[in-house]
Amino acid sequence: MKIIIVGASGTMGTYLSSAFEKEHEIVRADRSGADVQVDITSPESIEEMYKKVGTFDAVISTAGPTFVGPWNKLTDKEFRQGIEGKMMGQINLVLIGQHYINAKGSFSLITGALTHDPQKNFANASAANGAVEGFVRAAAIELQNGIRINAVSPTVIENSPQYFPYFPGDIPVTMKQLEFGFRKSAFGANTGQVIKPH
Amino acid sequence: MKIIIVGASGTMGTYLSSAFEKEHEIVRADRSGADVQVDITSPESIEEMYKKVGTFDAVISTAGPTFVGPWNKLTDKEFRQGIEGKMMGQINLVLIGQHYINAKGSFSLITGALTHDPQKNFANASAANGAVEGFVRAAAIELQNGIRINAVSPTVIENSPQYFPYFPGDIPVTMKQLEFGFRKSAFGANTGQVIKPH
Repeated sequence: MKIIIVGASGTMGTYLSSAFEKEHEIVRADRSGADVQVDITSPESIEEMYKKVGTFDAVISTAGPTFVGPWNKLTDKEFRQGIEGKMMGQINLVLIGQHYINAKGSFSLITGALTHDPQKNFANASAANGAVEGFVRAAAIELQNGIRINAVSPTVIENSPQYFPYFPGDIPVTMKQLEFGFRKSAFGANTGQVIKPH
Repeated sequence: MKIIIVGASGTMGTYLSSAFEKEHEIVRADRSGADVQVDITSPESIEEMYKKVGTFDAVISTAGPTFVGPWNKLTDKEFRQGIEGKMMGQINLVLIGQHYINAKGSFSLITGALTHDPQKNFANASAANGAVEGFVRAAAIELQNGIRINAVSPTVIENSPQYFPYFPGDIPVTMKQLEFGFRKSAFGANTGQVIKPH
C-alpha cells in the first residue's frame, strides 16, 4: 500500500513513518525536507503535493497546528491558527485528495481527546478537533468509490512530555497505541469513526 | 433579565423573541432592522453591538449560516461560509461578549444534530457544529465570574419544512421544545453542555 504521511517529521509522523515503512511504501510529506513538501494551510500546496505523488492508497495526517495559550489572549486572530492548520488543513487534504486517491483508499485524520475533555489553554484545539470529527462523520456518507475516512483521537501522547502538565490525570497514550489507532483507521473496514487509541 | 437574541428575525429568533419577551427585556439583534444591527462575521460589528446595548445578562444566538449543497461543489471556498458564520460568528460572540456580559450571565449558542448525525449536503454544518460544541465545553472551564455557556442542538425544526426532505426519518423538533432547550441553557445552572431539545 502506498501511504502519504502528512506531518512526517513531527513527533507522531516520525514514529508512524518508521512503523509503517516495514510493510508499506511511505511518502513522507511535511512543510520542509521530507519526500514531498506541503503547507497544509494552502489548498494550492496540497493540490501540488498530490500531483507530485501520483497514485496512492492512503493519507495519514498527524498535522495539527493550533493556538495553545491562556484564554485571556484568545481572540479571533489566534483562533485562526487552528482553523487554517488542524481544521481546514486536514479538511482540505480530504476535499482535494478525494480526486487523487485510489478507489477503496482511506483518509486518517488526527483529532484528540480535547474535543470532549477540555483542558485550560486548549480551546482552539477543542474547536478544531470538534470540526474535524463532525466533518469525518459527514464525509463518510459522501465519499465515493469505497473511499473511507476516520479520525484518530488520542489524549496527550507518550513522546510529548512537554504537554503532560497541561493534562493532569490523563494517562499518556503510548506510541504503540497511537500506531494501532492509525492501523485500525487505515487498514480496517470502518468509516466515519473517531478512534480512541487506548 | 436583559437578553440579546442574535438572529432575531430568523425562524428561531422570531419565535424565541416572542416567547421570552413576556418575562424578560429582549434586545433583538440581526443583520438589518431589529433593535440593534450586527454582522456576526465581523468581530468589529460584534464589539459595536455590545457597546450599543450596554449591560446585559444573556446572549441567545440562533445565527448559523453554513453552506448547504452537494458534496461535489464543496471546496475550501464554500466551507468558509460555515467558518465565518455559524462557527467564528458564534465563537466571537463569546470571546468578545465575555468582556461586556454581567457576572453570572450566560451564552446560549445554536448547533444541531448534524454534529453526530450527518446528512447529505450538510458537511459544512456538521463541522461548524462540532467546532462550536468543542468550543462550548472548553469555554465553560475558562469563563470567569460565574458566566455560563451551553449549546442547544436540535434536529430539523418544525417551522422550517423546506428542510424536511434533507432529514429523512428525523422527527422535527417543535418550536416549544426548542424554546425549552434555550430556557434550560439560559435560565438553568449547567455549563459546558450540549442540550438536545427533544
